[in-house]
Order: sequence, then structure tokens, then C-alpha cells
Amino acid sequence: MKYGIAVFPSRKLQDLANSYRKRYDTKYSMIPPHLTLKDPFPVEESELEGLVREIRKTAKECRPFKLEIIKYSSFYPVTNTLYMKAAENKELIELQESLDKGPLERKREHPFIPHITIGQEMDYDELSDVFGRLKLETIHHEELIDRFSLLYQLENGAWTVHETFLLGEDNE
Amino acid sequence: MKYGIAVFPSRKLQDLANSYRKRYDTKYSMIPPHLTLKDPFPVEESELEGLVREIRKTAKECRPFKLEIIKYSSFYPVTNTLYMKAAENKELIELQESLDKGPLERKREHPFIPHITIGQEMDYDELSDVFGRLKLETIHHEELIDRFSLLYQLENGAWTVHETFLLGEDNE
Repeated sequence: MKYGIAVFPSRKLQDLANSYRKRYDTKYSMIPPHLTLKDPFPVEESELEGLVREIRKTAKECRPFKLEIIKYSSFYPVTNTLYMKAAENKELIELQESLDKGPLERKREHPFIPHITIGQEMDYDELSDVFGRLKLETIHHEELIDRFSLLYQLENGAWTVHETFLLGEDNE
Repeated sequence: MKYGIAVFPSRKLQDLANSYRKRYDTKYSMIPPHLTLKDPFPVEESELEGLVREIRKTAKECRPFKLEIIKYSSFYPVTNTLYMKAAENKELIELQESLDKGPLERKREHPFIPHITIGQEMDYDELSDVFGRLKLETIHHEELIDRFSLLYQLENGAWTVHETFLLGEDNE
């Protein structure tokens, strides 16, 4: 089964992301707006329990982090994707790296660029049109993230949350 | 903001439910297949923390329960809904009642009938046609549920998981 790890930001930011995703994101109905911490990876049923224990430990050792959205950006020409770019900071990077260590280590296909996708698989004309307009807009949004989720993918491509993990020792 | 409490069953059962939901459930893309433990209810931001603490306590005090799907059924003529009917058992009823006690108590619009919706807002002809076929099928599925989720609704009607709760004192 395929699992992934992601952060769901505040409802406010999810609603804003969805206002674009509705038109431009082919995965709109598969999962709510999110920031991916760990790309989808296969997990055998027999491995799951150990993996979850490891993630629980990691969550406790890491701290809540500031999610700071600084601009709209695009992965073009690598992929025709539009996204909200999040600033890097120590806590976020530490969390992402901790989720890719020891028993959680998986081969990454690309470097970690923290972002929330708002459009993907767009055709070039639409991408350049929408991105042209978004570049003129300023966006600045900050919030504290104190949790993340382990999800698995269903047959239809949609994602279900298996478990949420609270960040930090005292976060309850 | 509107919150609700639900159980996501195994991927196998979700995939089966989705095979019907895809065609017959108008909420197909809003949330994965689920068994509702607590109908949507409004929560003020200031109430949320206390409420979550209460739910955590309740989860620890309750026990994992057997989810046993025994047949296909319909809420017709109350609503044009098709569902998989779950058998009642002590642990499930205790959990549902505990989530409706003290600070968690809310007015219920209808009695608790544990089920997983596979079709809703169907027109009568389709409902009676599909239900006619499903009545001839036998379904028997059992699994152990050891967690449930608190979700909130986005502007577009879709649901995001706020937190999962493990059932029982030793469930970690």
C-alpha cells in the first residue's frame, strides 16, 4: 500500500488553495490542500506498525514549526505545477529530515521544496497565463503547525488519513 | 466551523464502498468512505481545545470495536440513501454514547444507526433498481477498529482530518 506524510494547514489557507485547485489541480478531489513532508512510498502491512512507532517518536522529538507562505511559484519546466511557496526554517527542515532517517529513509526523487500545490498537469498556455497573474499578487501568510498526518492511498487515487501526530513532547 | 467524528474502515472496505459511491454518492469526492460516529456540529475556535481534550479522554476510556458489516440497506423513504449496515455491539455503542455525553452532548436529529453510506440523493428509480440488486447480494465483513477521526469541513464542502484518536489505554 502507498503511504505519504503531509501537513494540512489552517482551514483559511486550505480554502484559499482550493479556490485555485478547483480549476487548475487535477488532484483536487483526491486530497485536501497540503504540504507534502514525505513523498508517497510503498509500505508492506507487516512493516506498518514499526513505521508508525518510529513516526510517533520522531513527532515527539521535533517541534511545532512556523508555516510561512511567501509567494506563488511554479515548477515549470520540470512539471506544469503551480504552488504556494513556503519559507524554509530550522524546525520545518529538521522535521522533514527526521522523517527521512533510519527506518524512515527512502530514496528521494527531487530535493525538498516546501510548498502547497494549487495547480498541476496544466497545459502550458493556462499555466503561463495564471502564473503571470499570480506573480503580480502578494501573498503573505503565517501560522503555527503543530501536527502532521500519515495517509494511505485508495484504489481510486484518493487519500485517507491513517493517523495524525502532534509535534513536540508537551503538545497535548 | 463545522466538525464531525467518523471512522475510516480498512482500505479494502473503503475500496468496495467507493465502487458504489463513485456512481451513486453525491458526496463521493468530499470525504473517503466512513462510518459517522457524530453528525456535523458547529464548534467555536475558542471551544476547540477543550473539546479535543475531552475526545482524547473519551478515546482512552473506550475500547477498540468490531466493525461487522451484515447487509446492504436503505433509509428510503426518509432519505434516498443506500448503505452498508454495521451490526451494533457493546463497544461501538459505548463509544458512540461517550462521544455524546457531558461537554460533547449535542442534539441528535435521528437515532444512531451505524452504517457506511454508498449512495445518497439518488433518484427513486435508480435507488430501487440498485437496492433491488444489492438485496440479493450477501456481504459479510469483519474488522477491528482501533481509532477514529475528528474532521472539519472546508468551504467547498470537503472534510479534512484534524486529529485521529486511538481507542483504549494501551493502544500505541
